[in-house]
Amino acid sequence: MNFRMIVYIVGQIIKIEGLLFLVPTITSVVYQESQGVVYGIMAISLFIIGMLITFKKPKNNIFYIKEGCVATALCWIILSVLGAIPFIITKEIPSFTDAVFEVVSGFTTTGSSILNDVEVLSHTSLIWRSFTHWVGGMGILIFLLAVIPLTGGSNVNLMKAESPGPQVDKSLPQIKTTTRLLYIIYGVLTISEFVLLLITGLPVFDSICMAFGTAGTGGFGILNSSCGAYPIASQWVITIFMMIFGVNFNVYVLIVFRRFKNALSSEEVITYFAIIATSITIITINIYNTCEGFFDSLTKSSFQVASIISTTGFSTTDFNEWPTICRVVLVLLMFTGGCAGSTAGGLKTSRICIAFKVFIREINSFLHPREIKSIKIDHKIVDKKTLRSVTIYFITYTFLFVISLFLIALDGHDLVTTFTSVAATINNIGPGLDLVGPTENFQFFSTPCKWVLIFDMLAGRLELFPMLMLFHPSIWRGTFFKHRRTY
Amino acid sequence: MNFRMIVYIVGQIIKIEGLLFLVPTITSVVYQESQGVVYGIMAISLFIIGMLITFKKPKNNIFYIKEGCVATALCWIILSVLGAIPFIITKEIPSFTDAVFEVVSGFTTTGSSILNDVEVLSHTSLIWRSFTHWVGGMGILIFLLAVIPLTGGSNVNLMKAESPGPQVDKSLPQIKTTTRLLYIIYGVLTISEFVLLLITGLPVFDSICMAFGTAGTGGFGILNSSCGAYPIASQWVITIFMMIFGVNFNVYVLIVFRRFKNALSSEEVITYFAIIATSITIITINIYNTCEGFFDSLTKSSFQVASIISTTGFSTTDFNEWPTICRVVLVLLMFTGGCAGSTAGGLKTSRICIAFKVFIREINSFLHPREIKSIKIDHKIVDKKTLRSVTIYFITYTFLFVISLFLIALDGHDLVTTFTSVAATINNIGPGLDLVGPTENFQFFSTPCKWVLIFDMLAGRLELFPMLMLFHPSIWRGTFFKHRRTY
Repeated sequence: MNFRMIVYIVGQIIKIEGLLFLVPTITSVVYQESQGVVYGIMAISLFIIGMLITFKKPKNNIFYIKEGCVATALCWIILSVLGAIPFIITKEIPSFTDAVFEVVSGFTTTGSSILNDVEVLSHTSLIWRSFTHWVGGMGILIFLLAVIPLTGGSNVNLMKAESPGPQVDKSLPQIKTTTRLLYIIYGVLTISEFVLLLITGLPVFDSICMAFGTAGTGGFGILNSSCGAYPIASQWVITIFMMIFGVNFNVYVLIVFRRFKNALSSEEVITYFAIIATSITIITINIYNTCEGFFDSLTKSSFQVASIISTTGFSTTDFNEWPTICRVVLVLLMFTGGCAGSTAGGLKTSRICIAFKVFIREINSFLHPREIKSIKIDHKIVDKKTLRSVTIYFITYTFLFVISLFLIALDGHDLVTTFTSVAATINNIGPGLDLVGPTENFQFFSTPCKWVLIFDMLAGRLELFPMLMLFHPSIWRGTFFKHRRTY
Repeated sequence: MNFRMIVYIVGQIIKIEGLLFLVPTITSVVYQESQGVVYGIMAISLFIIGMLITFKKPKNNIFYIKEGCVATALCWIILSVLGAIPFIITKEIPSFTDAVFEVVSGFTTTGSSILNDVEVLSHTSLIWRSFTHWVGGMGILIFLLAVIPLTGGSNVNLMKAESPGPQVDKSLPQIKTTTRLLYIIYGVLTISEFVLLLITGLPVFDSICMAFGTAGTGGFGILNSSCGAYPIASQWVITIFMMIFGVNFNVYVLIVFRRFKNALSSEEVITYFAIIATSITIITINIYNTCEGFFDSLTKSSFQVASIISTTGFSTTDFNEWPTICRVVLVLLMFTGGCAGSTAGGLKTSRICIAFKVFIREINSFLHPREIKSIKIDHKIVDKKTLRSVTIYFITYTFLFVISLFLIALDGHDLVTTFTSVAATINNIGPGLDLVGPTENFQFFSTPCKWVLIFDMLAGRLELFPMLMLFHPSIWRGTFFKHRRTY
């Protein structure tokens, strides 16, 4: 284990978090809120601490996938704990567990809240909450890659550990360029949404927070009614941008390079929109009776489908009250999630595609045992390694889900609450059903349960393995023992 | 497709079903019930029809896995439809759908009932219901193998399609001997349970039905209270036999051959009992407050854990009322199921074992990418084919589950009912939770939903693929077109 390099990267992250704190600090100046002092002090101290840690760059900056996973997991944990401090000091969220829950929910773009009343928070804290979504959406380490140079395969190993979805395989020299391009696309899309929200009549502050929350597919609202009180036009802007941010960003890169044909023929994206269209149709029909006409029904169903499949988690209505078929569709969408390479969570559409093709192949191989066909996505053969990783992802996901379900059940809430609270956090959605429905929050869980859910949010965002590996004894044995022996 | 051979096997099955109908016919003579006439006529007519179909044995009796699957699926469907006729004629279950549901539930050893009041049924029909469990438990085709000789790999292909669990690989010459031995063990265990139930004070008729229901891990009770009204001693006899019938029958074969060491060291069986012990402990503690002392709590929890993990589905209490943690444990046990090669349903303990080992290996391979260890069960390496089949089973299972969930949701019942009704049928358990809880039944579902559940019961019992393949167009294309061309 390259322990020094891990510390160096953590130092860089702390430095960056210092800079991130400038956003709420500046906001506090605009709104003349006293909370800004805390954020300002945090900004300065984190920047100084980060500088001290990263003062000397380690000579050996080679990094294996193992180090990549551990560094990623540690960075996200430290980022969250440090990010929670202002909430505790300002007493806006006095409990340590609650504050960490809220910030983890922010950075992992989950959007599950423990706040009974969001509206009492200062503008400073509200913007920090929403800003964590924006930062977490694209991945803070990917940002790091655009800034600091690493040797050889190091950046790939870091990127692999953080990027959502099974298909990240960039050629090395392009990484820096691609990363910058991704951030530019991300920025442009966010600004576009902000402008459109302003035009459709949302106040500036709401527009900023909503744009941050949508871009990161996060889901923290700044009103207790989430998006229910916003004008219909703004709701449609948010709906469309939620769908946009659930799409594989490679598609946008292709569009930038004017390769429209490739961009539009992506099987994953086609599947993604097919699922959206089907779900909207089913729900629009089934909630028609409870709505004021077809357009109202379409608006509500589109918003909610986009919100859940992109794992954002905003709501305009209490879908807890919807008929069973609609709730089942939403629960299934929770697991589907957005495309790989987007800011969304969930199992990812590409994994579902691959799994479905494996299933079809297997049925065929029963009938024609001699011809074993290879599985293709976008006319390219999916290699055995990827296939294996997909099935293993399903198995690992199931085990983590079952263990979490079991631990949350100890709290004794009803089955639907227990099941959907795990589903909503592990898939980085936000709201679940029943007691964790869109009009409710996660405050009522016991402290141990909150920590289980915090773990699930991080595990879901980092695609399971980085977080699970922290529990492996050999990680720690290797680190300390071998390290000492070297001296 | 060897179409003639499939017809021949179906004919044999019809003949056997004629013989099976003798059991209720004889019962009707004992209890002097008029329903016996119907069963008697059915017995004679099916036997004659079967004789006519199987009059001439096809010369080409070679059988591939494809034919094996189709023959198995067709046999089970025909067996169920014919088995339902007496219920319809005697008007004890007048609806065709309901009668088929009840008989499929019987043969697949599910034990989900559509009857609001079981106690109004005649002894003749009650014994037929319970007897279907006993027949379905060991597999009717395996019985066939012991009776009629097939050439080459044919019997293996038939057996593979019907046997529960991933590890059936018998050497060819032994099949007939092994099959007979299995039936002898099955019979001896059933008789032992019958005698012990008599001794503990159950009436003869109840003892027979309970022994049939336990042996097949079925779960049809003959009282509305299932086993709740039986003496505690009888409940413990049933508890222990439910556990026994959930064990891989290879263990009993090993015991017969006095290879005790091998029998006791089976990893699957150890895991099975470890899961049982853990679950009983958790539930005993959590229902302690609602019970009359420790022994009562232990009795109830042991009975229910044995009943669910063995996928039998008897109940002594309304576990719907239990705390969430107990209900979650029971739902998880529904999916675990018994051992491979037992009469139980579910995913099977061996698959869970293999999946868990794959998961552990994957965590390790992240840490030590160069040493890829092979997975061992009982000190034997699990080959790639088995590993692949396990992961593919999980994927297929998930897709079937999701589609069923979606279709059942159209009925509009609550989420827990919807989810557990699918879980209870696909895993061949019997009762679920809420509206399909142990004191309820499946009568209230719409007709289309009942057919979905019927399909799920058959798919679950036959390990998915035989039933799914019936939907594959090439099966039917191949059958009729090619067949015609041969002439």
